[in-house]
Amino acid sequence: MTAPDGARRSLILRRRPSGEPRAEDFALVEDFIPAPGEGEVLTRTILLSIDPYMRGRLADRPSYAPPVAIGAVMTGETVGEVLASAIPDFAPGDIVLGSRGWQTHSLSTAAALTKVDRQAAPLGAWLGVLGMPGTTAYSGLKDIGQPKPGETVVVSAASGAVGSVAGQLAKRAGARVVGVAGGPDKCLWVQETLGLDDCVDHRSANLRGALLDACPNGIDVYFENVGGAVQEAVFGLLNPHARVVMCGMIAQYNAAAFPPGPNLGFVVARRVRMEGLIVYDKPERFAEWRALAAPWVRDGSLHHRETVVDGLESAPEALRQVLRGGNFGKMLVRVGQEPA
Amino acid sequence: MTAPDGARRSLILRRRPSGEPRAEDFALVEDFIPAPGEGEVLTRTILLSIDPYMRGRLADRPSYAPPVAIGAVMTGETVGEVLASAIPDFAPGDIVLGSRGWQTHSLSTAAALTKVDRQAAPLGAWLGVLGMPGTTAYSGLKDIGQPKPGETVVVSAASGAVGSVAGQLAKRAGARVVGVAGGPDKCLWVQETLGLDDCVDHRSANLRGALLDACPNGIDVYFENVGGAVQEAVFGLLNPHARVVMCGMIAQYNAAAFPPGPNLGFVVARRVRMEGLIVYDKPERFAEWRALAAPWVRDGSLHHRETVVDGLESAPEALRQVLRGGNFGKMLVRVGQEPA
Repeated sequence: MTAPDGARRSLILRRRPSGEPRAEDFALVEDFIPAPGEGEVLTRTILLSIDPYMRGRLADRPSYAPPVAIGAVMTGETVGEVLASAIPDFAPGDIVLGSRGWQTHSLSTAAALTKVDRQAAPLGAWLGVLGMPGTTAYSGLKDIGQPKPGETVVVSAASGAVGSVAGQLAKRAGARVVGVAGGPDKCLWVQETLGLDDCVDHRSANLRGALLDACPNGIDVYFENVGGAVQEAVFGLLNPHARVVMCGMIAQYNAAAFPPGPNLGFVVARRVRMEGLIVYDKPERFAEWRALAAPWVRDGSLHHRETVVDGLESAPEALRQVLRGGNFGKMLVRVGQEPA
Repeated sequence: MTAPDGARRSLILRRRPSGEPRAEDFALVEDFIPAPGEGEVLTRTILLSIDPYMRGRLADRPSYAPPVAIGAVMTGETVGEVLASAIPDFAPGDIVLGSRGWQTHSLSTAAALTKVDRQAAPLGAWLGVLGMPGTTAYSGLKDIGQPKPGETVVVSAASGAVGSVAGQLAKRAGARVVGVAGGPDKCLWVQETLGLDDCVDHRSANLRGALLDACPNGIDVYFENVGGAVQEAVFGLLNPHARVVMCGMIAQYNAAAFPPGPNLGFVVARRVRMEGLIVYDKPERFAEWRALAAPWVRDGSLHHRETVVDGLESAPEALRQVLRGGNFGKMLVRVGQEPA
């Protein structure tokens, strides 16, 4: 099978960032667009997802996944179009979801790709509300948080890709749901559009007081995305038998060394259950969630919002913005045009 | 019903201790032995249990139970003998388990007492291995830790009332079990008598290194009784999907302010499940455990050890010793003679 004409562009890791990731930490390299070999599919990337976990892959410290090697293409979820296929299941023009990394074109095996229905939801939705972040929210509440009607749920980074779904799902479960977000615009959207009961600005001078006002009956479930001062304030208000979904701690992802955390006496005294979540541990949740939530996206009852920036070369800056809360909703990079 | 002749002696809380509890924090008061009113039973205390949780009841800070009031009799579990009863279910000479506090005699309702079989186990066993501490170990492993065959379980305070049962139960579950205890005598007993696979002295110069040697495959379950440096060393070695039974943090119970704890990034990265345990949340576990474990105590396959000190007035010093690891096994105060 022959390859299309033209160059493939890829962002490779040039050096491990110190602090915030910067464009200079990556290098843009070009090679030829490869032809698919036996059992392979060639795709071109339309949208690239930018997610907080990526900061962990840039650091050479122990985590749940090995770091990206220096000189390797940076990892990332993508939606792309099949250009050429040596597999009967995929044909040119198919739209596919996969982890094809920070590059314009890539080769995949069938197992690494999921065909998506363009009619069912906008392309960006497959990377956000219906993709890894949405599935993370779903699994976090189903497997760990388990909110009950009338309980109080707090979601940090509530306007983000994970938090916005977690908040809406907790509302569907009948809980009182309080978001925490950065600034009045995000807080307004969390309340007016997502329909959460309240939203606390984490930049408030008195964060604990604001949370206490918003959660007069204490906190039964905390969906943790940020760490830092928000975590400290929330932990102080947890009720007996509270559940904490430990999804992420974005506030410290750029730190060279992690700061101390909370004294864990409250875990004993209030019988808190705290559990870490990596969505890939339960891969069946992805298809479950897509089946459950695609109708809600289509009927407009599950809200989502994207920030889209243009061009593969914008990816490092997009990641920097995600880590400082500069995005609003799911951060995406448009790498190629959506087919007509 | 008339009361027996003689005086009742009680230890009441005189002031809240600063740091270690001392004899002067309590006052010994005498009054008349009361007569049981309608629905009441008069008991004399034979053995009083001394447990780490008592330090929390002496402090006026939020916890799972309200503090003991100044001037009130200090709380505590006891084994006693019925002296007089206005209830058909209890007769003089019956041996009963209850929370009768730091005093020689007390009145109870039927609901507050459990009759125990003197033939089934020595009296002290009903307060330790078969009592609240044993039930705590049982519930902690059954409800939270859930060790599987071949996994590595670490138990801190492994020679203590809770830890010695937790360690033996984890062995029965087929795990590799490593204790942490203070000093060579306790470590020897943990290995030789309890039969744990290894025991690390928490006074080791290189605690992390000693734990690493004892746990070459990492740690899957941690039964946490101590906090502090042991907690830090264990958390660093937890495997993905490890479970942490947060039972207590005795190392900090005398502290005026709790020190910072661990950064919780590891909870996310290693998908740790950490849960606080208060044994009274699942009251059915007490009878379950007594039924399960009494035969093991009788046939000698479940080992236990007690430190018994004499006289009600020894209780404050006994508590001080428990909080500094000065006891060996379950700490008991002999308040009155065991009937022949």
